[in-house]
Amino acid sequence: MTKAASEAGSYVEPGEFKRDTNYITTRITADGRDGYPVRAGRYRLVAARACPWANRTLIVRRLLGLEDALSLGLCGPTHDKLSWTFDLDPDGLDPVLRIPRLRDAYLARFPDYPRGITVPAIVDVPTGQVVTNDYARITLDFSTEWTAFHREGAPQLYPEPLRAEIDEVALAIFRDVNNGVYRCGFAGAQDAYDAAYDRLFARLDWLTERLTTQRYLVGDTITEADVRLFTTLVRFDPVYHGHFKCNRSKLSEMPVLWAYARDLFQTPGFGDTIDFGQIKTHYYAVHTDINPTKIVPKGPDLADWLTPHGREELGGRPFGDGTPPPPPRPAEQVPPLVEA
Amino acid sequence: MTKAASEAGSYVEPGEFKRDTNYITTRITADGRDGYPVRAGRYRLVAARACPWANRTLIVRRLLGLEDALSLGLCGPTHDKLSWTFDLDPDGLDPVLRIPRLRDAYLARFPDYPRGITVPAIVDVPTGQVVTNDYARITLDFSTEWTAFHREGAPQLYPEPLRAEIDEVALAIFRDVNNGVYRCGFAGAQDAYDAAYDRLFARLDWLTERLTTQRYLVGDTITEADVRLFTTLVRFDPVYHGHFKCNRSKLSEMPVLWAYARDLFQTPGFGDTIDFGQIKTHYYAVHTDINPTKIVPKGPDLADWLTPHGREELGGRPFGDGTPPPPPRPAEQVPPLVEA
Repeated sequence: MTKAASEAGSYVEPGEFKRDTNYITTRITADGRDGYPVRAGRYRLVAARACPWANRTLIVRRLLGLEDALSLGLCGPTHDKLSWTFDLDPDGLDPVLRIPRLRDAYLARFPDYPRGITVPAIVDVPTGQVVTNDYARITLDFSTEWTAFHREGAPQLYPEPLRAEIDEVALAIFRDVNNGVYRCGFAGAQDAYDAAYDRLFARLDWLTERLTTQRYLVGDTITEADVRLFTTLVRFDPVYHGHFKCNRSKLSEMPVLWAYARDLFQTPGFGDTIDFGQIKTHYYAVHTDINPTKIVPKGPDLADWLTPHGREELGGRPFGDGTPPPPPRPAEQVPPLVEA
Repeated sequence: MTKAASEAGSYVEPGEFKRDTNYITTRITADGRDGYPVRAGRYRLVAARACPWANRTLIVRRLLGLEDALSLGLCGPTHDKLSWTFDLDPDGLDPVLRIPRLRDAYLARFPDYPRGITVPAIVDVPTGQVVTNDYARITLDFSTEWTAFHREGAPQLYPEPLRAEIDEVALAIFRDVNNGVYRCGFAGAQDAYDAAYDRLFARLDWLTERLTTQRYLVGDTITEADVRLFTTLVRFDPVYHGHFKCNRSKLSEMPVLWAYARDLFQTPGFGDTIDFGQIKTHYYAVHTDINPTKIVPKGPDLADWLTPHGREELGGRPFGDGTPPPPPRPAEQVPPLVEA
């Protein structure tokens, strides 16, 4: 998500960061009840590797093998006041949508669109209109509505019998961790920061306890809950620990979570969506309210992400009855870790 | 030091932080050749627990037992645009000098004093005039000029036969570490930051190698060189790692330096001068150019400073033929670590 127009959100009480959670709730469904039926080649997912909310869609699309059915446009790590931009593409235009700014797709559907322009978004290619930016719904619909285009061996990321538990865990993770790091970093008052910090680390301690004896968050396979926790953990040491002052300890100093995160990072579909260079550039260059110099730290050392994690001993079947996805296609590869 | 009036220094080339190293070079000597002879009770050391340069004087004064001969005034962790202030004292006045701002002592001697007001400074109590703020000279003079007032068992921190080596090591530490962290944090351009970061961590690697097989930096006892390295290391994880972007790794992730720093911290005269709360408040509240929100991070966990360090195995005689100092007097005690 990460809004271009209102990056730091609005404030409800003095100093507290409040995320605008009003999204375009139109859904792309198998039955097309909102006017947008699932179709191969009709839609384009627009994401940014920098953004943790968009990162979820990149992982789930990879895990389920939706690459052929749903093409991908990638915005660069920084954005201007108005919008995420296609500044990585030749001539600064998305090669399919032929627009320079994601905002253009929002305005094509809603000429007076009043809220921030966020990634991920899905655009209807024939009309050039945004369909949805409801990031939390998008990945669930990938699992449940796009089944006709899942690859052979696609895992069950949101299995019916586990949905209540996944939803519960994911909600706690959203409040205290995914959004919790932003509540630390964008707090406008010491009290608000202190409260967010306490909630964040209390939740990380809770997650440590949960993950000490089980390999994944819910059940014994990778689910949507793991995807959602991973995208925050992977940004923890490079960004949140320093930039957002989430500094009780680094992820690398929390052994259970650090091994859990490395396990996922080394699982096909996770680490191969991560571009640490873009992640760091995004946060440190865009948030001039908390980093006025825009200088991007050189650290931390990232090579440790590839060290053995030992989590296989806990059992678990990463893909359940399915299989890992094949390597990413050449056009969608990220830079090797050592260059990050 | 840390100048109130020109905290971030001046810039010599684009983006590079340059420390103003012009100090008042008047010396207090045994022979009184600058007009200020060493005398018990005549002078007052003004320091701030927050400041790494002033911290050196607090440690050396403790190690040598100069408390009775040289009284201590302590400024609070933050300062205003003009000066460090005595805001911790009743009515905001230093109880001996009866001034609210250290600047008043500077102006008493130099009515048009043009440079920043820095700690540490030594003030001549009868006239209320600053004598010197030449922090690098002050601690050496404590060792070599104030010998008449050293306690029984005071260590040799600057022994004649080792001076050349101490000076050489201390110069490298000053350039790349003591001042190097500031060069990272106050860099105005990415290139300048990158260069400072590389020099800092190259020097820390060099120090790691040196300290792998010897307990202290020079010889087999604590010297001035150790005092100078310690005051930067102790601030590394609470401040420099995040606030100054010195984030290749935390001190706690560099095992040799971390054990070396804990060894010193647990040595009487070192850790008992450290007030982590004041240190954090100072940097995060004063440097609004790099932390506009003034929010002070709650982390990191500091209890680990008291864990065993194992450095006794390397031998060494911390105080040489001398002895450790007694505990600090009640009026000069710092808050316990757990409350920091």
